[in-house]
Amino acid sequence: MPSIFTKIINGEIPCYKVAETDDFLAFLDINPNAIGHTLCIPKKEVNKLLDLDEESYKGLMLFSRKVGIAIEKSIPCKRVGMTVIGLEVPHVHVHLIPLNSMEDARFTSKQLLSSKDFEATAKAISSNL
Amino acid sequence: MPSIFTKIINGEIPCYKVAETDDFLAFLDINPNAIGHTLCIPKKEVNKLLDLDEESYKGLMLFSRKVGIAIEKSIPCKRVGMTVIGLEVPHVHVHLIPLNSMEDARFTSKQLLSSKDFEATAKAISSNL
Repeated sequence: MPSIFTKIINGEIPCYKVAETDDFLAFLDINPNAIGHTLCIPKKEVNKLLDLDEESYKGLMLFSRKVGIAIEKSIPCKRVGMTVIGLEVPHVHVHLIPLNSMEDARFTSKQLLSSKDFEATAKAISSNL
Repeated sequence: MPSIFTKIINGEIPCYKVAETDDFLAFLDINPNAIGHTLCIPKKEVNKLLDLDEESYKGLMLFSRKVGIAIEKSIPCKRVGMTVIGLEVPHVHVHLIPLNSMEDARFTSKQLLSSKDFEATAKAISSNL
């Protein structure tokens, strides 16, 4: 069965898209730690970060850097954190999270945002790419 | 004032070294989330991950990939997570953390290890590089 992220890539599930290339997609996390929390994924469905071949890993990391810099320009924060865990969805995803405190990095307190908030945030980040 | 990590690089503060190149150093976190928790740093003292120039960023990420794969071979875990936060020490550091549950990724529960544990762990990871 395709992962939820493959369904997003295929357009079967909608997302608030931030950036896209032939190989990678960035979209807002719908259960964000903080406003601007974004996921960067390879379009190829691979479970673990360290199972990506070196080229795909390098490509994902450089794509995440570009998106992270755009987030830093768009969202007031101390810095953008980067986290790869992957215990829940078996499809590599890099979390980019605008951080103001350690709490924002723990995946324990979540932000409730409206569709309008998500749309405006995705648009703001995209425009800074 | 040099960061605590620059002092480690210069040998003024000891560490349990895992890997070293001309540009990067990997050593065990002495306040680990889980056994095998390793930090990868650039020798150049830069505060934020996204302030690294593209070449240094790419180099750090490829170095972290190699170390992460060695950790996965050495430490029983579901996968190795990767996190960059940096709110405490203003010198870029990539956390590589052997994960068995989300708790291992939250920086809230810590492992108390002996010098012997640290030495054996660093040696095991090094030998798998």
